[in-house]
Amino acid sequence: MDFDSIDTTVPALGKSKIQSPIRADSEDTRRLFFVSDQDRVIIDINQANLEDRIRRGQKIPSFEAAGPRAKIYFDPSKLRCALVTCGGLCPGLNDIIRSIVLELYHAYGVHQIYGARYGLQGFIPAYGHDFMNLTPQSVTDIHYMGGTVLGSSRGPQPIEEVVDCLERMNIRLLFMIGGDGTLRASSLIVNEITARNLKISVVSIPKTIDNDIYLVARSFGFETAVSVATQAIVAAHNEAKGYPNGIGLIKLMGRYSGFIAASAAIAQQDVNFVLIPEADFDLHGNGGLLDAVEKRLQERKHAVIVVAEGAGQKFFKDKAEARDESGNMRLMDIGRYLKKEILAYFKSKNMDTTVKYIDPSYMIRSLPANSSDNVYCSFLGRDAVHAGMAGKTGLLVGHWNNQFVHVPMSASVGKHKQVSPDGTLWLNVLAATGQGRLKNCVMGLAS
Amino acid sequence: MDFDSIDTTVPALGKSKIQSPIRADSEDTRRLFFVSDQDRVIIDINQANLEDRIRRGQKIPSFEAAGPRAKIYFDPSKLRCALVTCGGLCPGLNDIIRSIVLELYHAYGVHQIYGARYGLQGFIPAYGHDFMNLTPQSVTDIHYMGGTVLGSSRGPQPIEEVVDCLERMNIRLLFMIGGDGTLRASSLIVNEITARNLKISVVSIPKTIDNDIYLVARSFGFETAVSVATQAIVAAHNEAKGYPNGIGLIKLMGRYSGFIAASAAIAQQDVNFVLIPEADFDLHGNGGLLDAVEKRLQERKHAVIVVAEGAGQKFFKDKAEARDESGNMRLMDIGRYLKKEILAYFKSKNMDTTVKYIDPSYMIRSLPANSSDNVYCSFLGRDAVHAGMAGKTGLLVGHWNNQFVHVPMSASVGKHKQVSPDGTLWLNVLAATGQGRLKNCVMGLAS
Amino acid sequence: MDFDSIDTTVPALGKSKIQSPIRADSEDTRRLFFVSDQDRVIIDINQANLEDRIRRGQKIPSFEAAGPRAKIYFDPSKLRCALVTCGGLCPGLNDIIRSIVLELYHAYGVHQIYGARYGLQGFIPAYGHDFMNLTPQSVTDIHYMGGTVLGSSRGPQPIEEVVDCLERMNIRLLFMIGGDGTLRASSLIVNEITARNLKISVVSIPKTIDNDIYLVARSFGFETAVSVATQAIVAAHNEAKGYPNGIGLIKLMGRYSGFIAASAAIAQQDVNFVLIPEADFDLHGNGGLLDAVEKRLQERKHAVIVVAEGAGQKFFKDKAEARDESGNMRLMDIGRYLKKEILAYFKSKNMDTTVKYIDPSYMIRSLPANSSDNVYCSFLGRDAVHAGMAGKTGLLVGHWNNQFVHVPMSASVGKHKQVSPDGTLWLNVLAATGQGRLKNCVMGLAS
Amino acid sequence: MDFDSIDTTVPALGKSKIQSPIRADSEDTRRLFFVSDQDRVIIDINQANLEDRIRRGQKIPSFEAAGPRAKIYFDPSKLRCALVTCGGLCPGLNDIIRSIVLELYHAYGVHQIYGARYGLQGFIPAYGHDFMNLTPQSVTDIHYMGGTVLGSSRGPQPIEEVVDCLERMNIRLLFMIGGDGTLRASSLIVNEITARNLKISVVSIPKTIDNDIYLVARSFGFETAVSVATQAIVAAHNEAKGYPNGIGLIKLMGRYSGFIAASAAIAQQDVNFVLIPEADFDLHGNGGLLDAVEKRLQERKHAVIVVAEGAGQKFFKDKAEARDESGNMRLMDIGRYLKKEILAYFKSKNMDTTVKYIDPSYMIRSLPANSSDNVYCSFLGRDAVHAGMAGKTGLLVGHWNNQFVHVPMSASVGKHKQVSPDGTLWLNVLAATGQGRLKNCVMGLAS
Repeated sequence: MDFDSIDTTVPALGKSKIQSPIRADSEDTRRLFFVSDQDRVIIDINQANLEDRIRRGQKIPSFEAAGPRAKIYFDPSKLRCALVTCGGLCPGLNDIIRSIVLELYHAYGVHQIYGARYGLQGFIPAYGHDFMNLTPQSVTDIHYMGGTVLGSSRGPQPIEEVVDCLERMNIRLLFMIGGDGTLRASSLIVNEITARNLKISVVSIPKTIDNDIYLVARSFGFETAVSVATQAIVAAHNEAKGYPNGIGLIKLMGRYSGFIAASAAIAQQDVNFVLIPEADFDLHGNGGLLDAVEKRLQERKHAVIVVAEGAGQKFFKDKAEARDESGNMRLMDIGRYLKKEILAYFKSKNMDTTVKYIDPSYMIRSLPANSSDNVYCSFLGRDAVHAGMAGKTGLLVGHWNNQFVHVPMSASVGKHKQVSPDGTLWLNVLAATGQGRLKNCVMGLAS
Repeated sequence: MDFDSIDTTVPALGKSKIQSPIRADSEDTRRLFFVSDQDRVIIDINQANLEDRIRRGQKIPSFEAAGPRAKIYFDPSKLRCALVTCGGLCPGLNDIIRSIVLELYHAYGVHQIYGARYGLQGFIPAYGHDFMNLTPQSVTDIHYMGGTVLGSSRGPQPIEEVVDCLERMNIRLLFMIGGDGTLRASSLIVNEITARNLKISVVSIPKTIDNDIYLVARSFGFETAVSVATQAIVAAHNEAKGYPNGIGLIKLMGRYSGFIAASAAIAQQDVNFVLIPEADFDLHGNGGLLDAVEKRLQERKHAVIVVAEGAGQKFFKDKAEARDESGNMRLMDIGRYLKKEILAYFKSKNMDTTVKYIDPSYMIRSLPANSSDNVYCSFLGRDAVHAGMAGKTGLLVGHWNNQFVHVPMSASVGKHKQVSPDGTLWLNVLAATGQGRLKNCVMGLAS
Repeated sequence: MDFDSIDTTVPALGKSKIQSPIRADSEDTRRLFFVSDQDRVIIDINQANLEDRIRRGQKIPSFEAAGPRAKIYFDPSKLRCALVTCGGLCPGLNDIIRSIVLELYHAYGVHQIYGARYGLQGFIPAYGHDFMNLTPQSVTDIHYMGGTVLGSSRGPQPIEEVVDCLERMNIRLLFMIGGDGTLRASSLIVNEITARNLKISVVSIPKTIDNDIYLVARSFGFETAVSVATQAIVAAHNEAKGYPNGIGLIKLMGRYSGFIAASAAIAQQDVNFVLIPEADFDLHGNGGLLDAVEKRLQERKHAVIVVAEGAGQKFFKDKAEARDESGNMRLMDIGRYLKKEILAYFKSKNMDTTVKYIDPSYMIRSLPANSSDNVYCSFLGRDAVHAGMAGKTGLLVGHWNNQFVHVPMSASVGKHKQVSPDGTLWLNVLAATGQGRLKNCVMGLAS
Repeated sequence: MDFDSIDTTVPALGKSKIQSPIRADSEDTRRLFFVSDQDRVIIDINQANLEDRIRRGQKIPSFEAAGPRAKIYFDPSKLRCALVTCGGLCPGLNDIIRSIVLELYHAYGVHQIYGARYGLQGFIPAYGHDFMNLTPQSVTDIHYMGGTVLGSSRGPQPIEEVVDCLERMNIRLLFMIGGDGTLRASSLIVNEITARNLKISVVSIPKTIDNDIYLVARSFGFETAVSVATQAIVAAHNEAKGYPNGIGLIKLMGRYSGFIAASAAIAQQDVNFVLIPEADFDLHGNGGLLDAVEKRLQERKHAVIVVAEGAGQKFFKDKAEARDESGNMRLMDIGRYLKKEILAYFKSKNMDTTVKYIDPSYMIRSLPANSSDNVYCSFLGRDAVHAGMAGKTGLLVGHWNNQFVHVPMSASVGKHKQVSPDGTLWLNVLAATGQGRLKNCVMGLAS
């Protein structure tokens, strides 16, 4: 990654002058507890690179550390906040909502907290969705349930109407929890707010079960997703072993990146082939997938294949490109395509095989978070509140080098983190599967 | 059920003359412990019916009780046994295999136990599958894994070749674990054995995740299946609530009967419509499913539908009837059909809906059994061994009125147990869902 | 069991004259759906026993079938009901509460439903606990949580004050969910009601995680308990194998009967010794437990022991007998006693061992029910409502020969179901553990 | 932490001259894939601190990055390796064993791999334990089981005899997986090896379920432990709510640090008091724990307390200090002590309370790792192999700033990572529990 080009400056609405209501026991504690804007986290922690920079007199790129500030921008007693969740479900949404509400209410004393229903639709009067009042009471048990109590929706809404609604309701702090499209919408909302010269802060918490947010090492719900994905692998493995030449085929989430597929295949080492968007592969020909599966069946009588939903999209190149309501490129169904191709291939070879196809997507997305994600979401939500109360805007709360940080939206929007074909994750996958490099699998060229 | 027409006589190869090697502590214990063929379990336990029979001088239908016999037919030191698992995976297969092997080996001292690989294919030389030697050591941990260590396959094989193989290998006791098709095959094998005047016993353990075996109250794996099906319901419910007019649609197992669908909907009471083969329903028109779903959405903004795979097959009547390799009628995919119809219906009404479709079938079938099924399978396997060692044949080990019993294959083969439309199970479903009777839903007429 | 002495007549407050508001579709359905008091379930289903009775002209003992009656006793629009949960926690309490409330409300239209807080304390003004209003809304999600939303308590309360409270509040139908002590209290309350000539119905749902209710084949929460108990066995097994001469010792619930210990040991076959109240055993001497464990360690280097809490109480005979607040005999802690004795024994033999002791009791009791118990509780609750609405009283809702039945309190109170030492459950345990009969283990003599 | 005093130089047996057998596709890939000793990870990533160092001309502390080296020290075809697991069980032990064996065998071609049985006892002839041959076949399924297939033991063994055994068996590479005591033993073994001028490499993988290894951000098994600890909290919460003035008390692991207690209380936010070794507290007096619990009961009628096993040891100061066989200070049982004190306190106040005490320790330690720890262990094991094959010794494989690194044993041995009283973890706990600072709770003074 080219760290030099990253703009790491987080916008702010103005100077923070109000004493934070968060109590610190003593001056000593205070100093340790509160985070200042001068607390910054180095992005590139390779020592050689760093010394190189020092030698060349280059600046050292770093992110602002997340955490509570001693002075805040908004007056808690007057502040009205809103939360919105957008896009597909992801384990942890309710944890984030709960964490934000509890921190606003108990730590800062903000009592006017509104939940927009069904994503950005909630701001558009035409849909007629009422806002929810969010209180500690109303969120106390929501993290036991998957999904989002606010509801969600896909697709863009007129940015002006969203900002109109914020103005009309006098919302001064907006928390947006969503993926790619939501990040784009957040940026546009910030622009519109700036254009209108309003003092409204927008803080994003990036949501993608795929774990592909650029400049964010871990996204919430990912650990939970991997955990359940391993159950699908166990199932596929049992089905594959259960029949002569049995093939278990699992499609996992991963539009642009194969993090779930790769991690699940390491966590449950019963997989023989992992196909991800970052690694091109051929189906046919010597060294292609079908050839490799055939060899595997001859040796071991069964095979398990994991394919990320964004893999192998080149096979659909002739088809018109389409985009869904959120503006994501509409992916062709590589899972069912592979099933069809595998069946046709072995039929043509007069080889009896059984293909069991598993698509656990909705059973993963709708789960409550596991305890690791519970803890992670608790931190994310609180840090989003700290950032917002300090009047910061146009940022997302990220995680880098094991620290929570502020990442300007502009630095992350429109880009994707990907599995590096020469990194330890993928090399660990190659070791765990023994799949080798499939023909035409020139890794590192995926975009 | 017409209990009078049931033939409850279990065939036997001959007189049991050998003392059972199972130790009993004393004569007293002995009397309590061993089961005699005179121990029979009354089938119809309604007192009024019974007294009616007594009045009319009719016989009282009963099943032979399962359990260890004091005298056995086969000499354990010489006996060679085989096990085979056929058809689709079902939680508990490995438990049954393990239980049979341990009981044969430890309780009776039978040490020559062979596992046929990949279902009936294992008996056909052309496939070239070797038999597995089964020992306590080789089966000790298999119940932690789903699937079957023997492998399975669908489809019939030439009965003569199967019996040839039994003769050639000198197998005198065969345990067949499988569903409908396997029961049919078992009967044919018994006939062929009889025709050849051989002394080979065939004992079936009926396997159907659908819980639809005629004259068997509970089939192994069913409790496990319901348990996981509830997770799919939770997922569908979260997805449905997550979007405006969200619809969660789950297809569950159940070719001829809706036991899984009905039980899961009671266990996880988030379902609004349960569609099963036993209850006809219309899609269109006033009171049809689509109309009912629309009303539900208007009232509550989301809906959850569970459909058993065998429901609504009338919608495909024009299509040619096909049968799969096991001879089961090939079912059309009611799940995807409903999804398509629902989407089309609401599109025609200009009503924005989201349909999330979940088919957890393979994630359920391939699981290890839960503890309730572990216990149940442990009993089933032992009782199958007791029956076989006593020289009984042409029977399946069943469960009736909370007792393990011997059911002659002839009494059960080719029939299905179904959800009674006026029984407490379905009425409990109606109460839990509030779905009412859908239009044209004349229950009790399903065959 | 001596079935002849069982009084199976269920008391009733009076004649049921009101048409049930439960809709039946047609006369045909009606006939099938409603249960009449003439529908009775035969208790002893052994055919030989039955024919013997017929020959001798004896009556055939049977229980009244549970289920909805066509005519009911109480007018739903005026009826006030109360629910109370007593004694220790058990998986499924909230399912039962929910099922009763939903059935009362939706099926019968009873809208005045009160929950007594903290067991019988809730009826005693001195404690100052307010009643809870129970509505479909307030119980909708409670089954996701373990424990009881009503709270519970142990110990008797003055019966007169309880009945005073029922009179004062005009409660006419009381559902009592509890164990031994509660059943005793229920009987006394019924007597007091009768003495005062009141028309108040009391319906019990027997709760005992131990599964030892006399004349009830299965009690709710038991399947869940066994399921979690197996996890403790897995843990103990891993700890035992982890160290030289490692011993895993697990204490499981079971005051008077070893059903949980026995079933868990069959479900998770890693146990070498199962100790239950029904089977006497010696610690010391040739063939005693310590001797047997030593032999096991010499052969296999590790051992797993499961002890039911009521086992081995003879070792404490010198100590004064005490009873807890619920009137149960206070059991001495056999788990810690065994740990101490085992350590002392091997120390005296200079044999290094490691003993890991696990007592999972509270982690089991406080769980939500699993799906099998969810379904079971749903039925239990509904059938309790049907019984109560029909004006029946002094009964508990039981399960016998796979049917829900009405058991008069008088027939069950003060007795315990036990594991039969010559029955298939215990014989299956002996096979699964290979433990043999320990010295002085004269089974069948336990009371 | 004083990073300057950390010696970060990793010892090595000699120069690595052998080409690694790990294939790289091309020169390009090669450059990216292999890690050089010049790849170092900065320890302190605070930018201000860093710039301060640069200004002062101080060196920048860093750890050597873990990973495969292009040149290795040992000749795989001749190398004999050994693995040993010591101390208490921890989820992931079998994953680590499996990962090491598979990487040695498949990636490097090392085929002579021996497992020492029962910890360091395995090296001492007097115990008579045979070594296990470890092959890909023998480890293929071990990660499904908790515990360690090698067995373990506590306590020191004569270092000379251990090294004698290594010499005798010609073991040149030893992997030691264990905690505190094992790290001390590792250091002594390295010293003895050096003193004897042997070329034997010792690589440690630090194991502590407590997550308190100095200079290691995350230890394997910790995520799994937190996950199960939350179940104990749910149980305690249900028990507490179930009775008037109910108190749930859970003792969790944590000898010197409260990471599990703190994380579990955040993951499952039903806890009202978290007591950890790092935070002193009084029991009695105004503002003491008992006073605070009483206030909580008065307000909410129930309370949940989590105590780490190392908390409150000051209450036992009079008692002689003892150490266990591994040399750890023997902790007094704070859980049972608190239970006793709480009961006595409320008895003295004539306040009826119920205390339910849960100690889930062995049910946590003996579990298989969850998927997050599966992945983590897979990396740890491989990186240990890479380090060992490169002839590095006297190091442990750690994780810092989200990177796997080599930490010299000397830098970590004898120290403990602790929960910072002013860090975000503890502050998040304070927010989640609302417990405030208990009297005399001067955090940050714990040693």
